[in-house]
Amino acid sequence: MLPDKVQKFIDFFSELPSIGPRQATRLAFYLIRRGKTAIASIAGVTGNLADIKTCSQCFFPYELIKRNFDGKTGLCQICANPKRRQDIIAVVEKETDFMSIEKTKKFQGRYLILGELSKDGILESEQKLRLSHLKNSIQKNFGQAEEIIVAFSPTTLGDLEASLIFEELKPMAKKITRLGRGLPTGGEIEFADEDTLSGALENRR
Amino acid sequence: MLPDKVQKFIDFFSELPSIGPRQATRLAFYLIRRGKTAIASIAGVTGNLADIKTCSQCFFPYELIKRNFDGKTGLCQICANPKRRQDIIAVVEKETDFMSIEKTKKFQGRYLILGELSKDGILESEQKLRLSHLKNSIQKNFGQAEEIIVAFSPTTLGDLEASLIFEELKPMAKKITRLGRGLPTGGEIEFADEDTLSGALENRR
Repeated sequence: MLPDKVQKFIDFFSELPSIGPRQATRLAFYLIRRGKTAIASIAGVTGNLADIKTCSQCFFPYELIKRNFDGKTGLCQICANPKRRQDIIAVVEKETDFMSIEKTKKFQGRYLILGELSKDGILESEQKLRLSHLKNSIQKNFGQAEEIIVAFSPTTLGDLEASLIFEELKPMAKKITRLGRGLPTGGEIEFADEDTLSGALENRR
Repeated sequence: MLPDKVQKFIDFFSELPSIGPRQATRLAFYLIRRGKTAIASIAGVTGNLADIKTCSQCFFPYELIKRNFDGKTGLCQICANPKRRQDIIAVVEKETDFMSIEKTKKFQGRYLILGELSKDGILESEQKLRLSHLKNSIQKNFGQAEEIIVAFSPTTLGDLEASLIFEELKPMAKKITRLGRGLPTGGEIEFADEDTLSGALENRR
């Protein structure tokens, strides 16, 4: 019943993460209603993502711009910044975690994006590759890093994975840490769950 | 912190219906990870929507294909189908409502897509245009339609809007109807709300 090109749009968009067939269908009708110019803009900004590279050190996306970067290094703005400490590394799960930590402006080291943890707790081959890439770069450049922060979310899965990676990276750093546990700022003791409150007690300052 | 082209993608996608900045951000990172080929596919299927026209009679999208349609008519498959009754018209809110009714295979007439009802219950100028377009075509072709079905969802807003349009289209048709109210197939009386059960009693057969 739907034109082929509309059906194809829906099929492709339905396969994107967290977009279902219903949302894809609504999106198609919306764009058709908006007309050619809106369609061209959306197609354009999507196609432009093809120009985005991934940093060869931390795997955050970056755009190759001559005036900012030396094309040979293949590094993002943060990894290429001489003011950032190369021997302090935060291992994060996702690009958005990288961005959240960066927004605090409290971290002067660099990152490694490991990729989303799979639910079975086993590292994918790409993730193992990134870890050994990090180990090699530490050994080659400093012998041992000053500090590695395993900055995973304090969920059951994140905790499990963090303890595994903790063991694996321990020999690579003088200090290996995790993000502090405690009451979130603005949170009330009355409403904190037991685990959070236990963490806050243990980490009292 | 994000490359311009990634930020632009996020900005554009965040403005699409039911996609927020978080989902747009995740989408950007996902596509970058998938690589150039996946990006080109998604950009391609999106750009192709520019070839989609909207039926000049019912406003459902269709693709102009020479072997199927006479380009001059500007009609979709259903409106151009001589087997469909042109004097029985279902007025629906959305393209998806059109599709849902079509899937029942119980309707042999044609449609008018009015567009989503605004929450203040006032018709937009485009919706008024579509209604008068329908009235003109009925008057010109048949004087009076055989039947007009005001097929809106039985919500408070849908009911309000339907009764307004009901009055407006009444002179245009020998019979003007709405979709039947009652228990949904598979539904249990025990769990039906009062309004649904009242509707089922009134419409008993």
